[in-house]
Amino acid sequence: MNNSNVISVPILFNLEEAKNWIETKREPFILKNFDYGPCLKKWNVDYLSQKAENRLVKIHVSTASEMDFINKNFIYRTLPFAELIKRASKENQTDFFISENEKYYLRSLGTDDRKDIANIKAEFPEIADDICFPPLFDKEKFFSSVFRITSSNLRLWTHYDIMDNILIQVSGRKRIILFPPSDIEYLYMKGDKSLVLEVDNPDLEKYPLFTKASRYECELNPGDGIFIPSLWLHNVITLDFSIGVNVFWKHLDDEFYEKKDIYGNKDLLNAQKAFLFTDKSLKELNSMPLYYKEFYTKRIIEALKDNLNK
Amino acid sequence: MNNSNVISVPILFNLEEAKNWIETKREPFILKNFDYGPCLKKWNVDYLSQKAENRLVKIHVSTASEMDFINKNFIYRTLPFAELIKRASKENQTDFFISENEKYYLRSLGTDDRKDIANIKAEFPEIADDICFPPLFDKEKFFSSVFRITSSNLRLWTHYDIMDNILIQVSGRKRIILFPPSDIEYLYMKGDKSLVLEVDNPDLEKYPLFTKASRYECELNPGDGIFIPSLWLHNVITLDFSIGVNVFWKHLDDEFYEKKDIYGNKDLLNAQKAFLFTDKSLKELNSMPLYYKEFYTKRIIEALKDNLNK
Repeated sequence: MNNSNVISVPILFNLEEAKNWIETKREPFILKNFDYGPCLKKWNVDYLSQKAENRLVKIHVSTASEMDFINKNFIYRTLPFAELIKRASKENQTDFFISENEKYYLRSLGTDDRKDIANIKAEFPEIADDICFPPLFDKEKFFSSVFRITSSNLRLWTHYDIMDNILIQVSGRKRIILFPPSDIEYLYMKGDKSLVLEVDNPDLEKYPLFTKASRYECELNPGDGIFIPSLWLHNVITLDFSIGVNVFWKHLDDEFYEKKDIYGNKDLLNAQKAFLFTDKSLKELNSMPLYYKEFYTKRIIEALKDNLNK
Repeated sequence: MNNSNVISVPILFNLEEAKNWIETKREPFILKNFDYGPCLKKWNVDYLSQKAENRLVKIHVSTASEMDFINKNFIYRTLPFAELIKRASKENQTDFFISENEKYYLRSLGTDDRKDIANIKAEFPEIADDICFPPLFDKEKFFSSVFRITSSNLRLWTHYDIMDNILIQVSGRKRIILFPPSDIEYLYMKGDKSLVLEVDNPDLEKYPLFTKASRYECELNPGDGIFIPSLWLHNVITLDFSIGVNVFWKHLDDEFYEKKDIYGNKDLLNAQKAFLFTDKSLKELNSMPLYYKEFYTKRIIEALKDNLNK
């Protein structure tokens, strides 16, 4: 890896500075010294297991340590919350779905997981008062709050979210690698995900431009919260068994977002329409013989580049 | 000018080789030694003036030696054919529209210049038998034949045509500069025209990529015909008072072309639709705040680049 482009995620200690940073810079930062509440002391395996013992949760189960959404190298299963916590906190399993070294990843869902947006204060009322979200956004902009409970040494594919969010690390350590949206042309996207899975050891024959992307890195420790701006690509590796809470909010007015998007990963409505028109444009381009298709595809690329400079 | 990229237009002497070149290479060439007929000996100012003396022709009149279609630095006027020939063959005028050193350019039109496609054998039947078109294409692919009669030292803006064509030089010399359609990204297009007018002395602050374009050059002498493939950008400078005939034909099946295109410069129908969808896509992109507009514009550029590599 060429590390010449690696930038350390800056650390902020002050809420006002953080709010200003979100509005003006739209770059990631770690917020330290914020009082996230008693969760930091209370939330361990025993405590959480007792609080919501039999609540069923949908989880990802993977035998690979690099989860790959595009080629789906994991399965979805359901476990009682206490059992998930117990298993995720251990390296080797006596009860398992695939193999004894399988790994677990919980991204909590809404009460009705097909209709409701995740809100841990509604789904886990027993522990609602244990955690306090930093007031980085107006209350009416709140979108969702999500439990992220993960086995150690599991890597989540590089993707972007459409909402601004803060990932609060309650227990364990995570390593996080981020790429700015302005470097999207080096990241080999497929939808909201990057095709480059092994970001520390990329296949440069397949992805020769990857090292051109600016690369932000940090280690997230208990009591840290990282601000991940909308559209910033991020790759998350759990160094330890991790308990975190991810709080999402809307950067823009409601009208820009798809109403039925319960995960907060659907592209902005205007972008979805732009993609649809692009598909129609591509269909016309591809209806011409190659000589003309190439020429007109290039002309349209130029028109889009001109639009960037306007 | 950085001339490192200048390529001489190849010269062919054989009709079969020329036909093969058109089909397989789609690159320009000069066809020499073809018998274009008695026009080469007969067509001079006196002869042509007598043949179609009073026929009215629409002409471009310019005081600048670099005609600029985008900023229209010329005017359209009408003259009898004999008068046009007489004036265009002289450097200084006694009768003029703007000034005594004005220049003239005739691109002949159809009999009804709003409906008919130019066909000099119909519009100038008196001299129809003087010129013979080389059989480089199937007869049913014929599109148009156009007189090009031009004062010396006049430069025509860089543009492309949608039809394959051969420009037969009957009298005088022309210098022709061509750029391949694959280099369109260096040519600062606006529609079918390049914004770079002074191709020998380009404004590199404004057009920094221009010198990256491959550049083909040649001098066209009486008895030469240059094959200009569809989409190849070309810039034509008359070194002398010039009489030429330009013959256009369809490279593709009829269904690809706009039926009402009497000039042969409308983009392929599929391309026109692709441009329309692109406009709609741009409208959606530009409805988003800048941060999102930039990101999604780049994503669509990537989708188009992927399409080039498919």
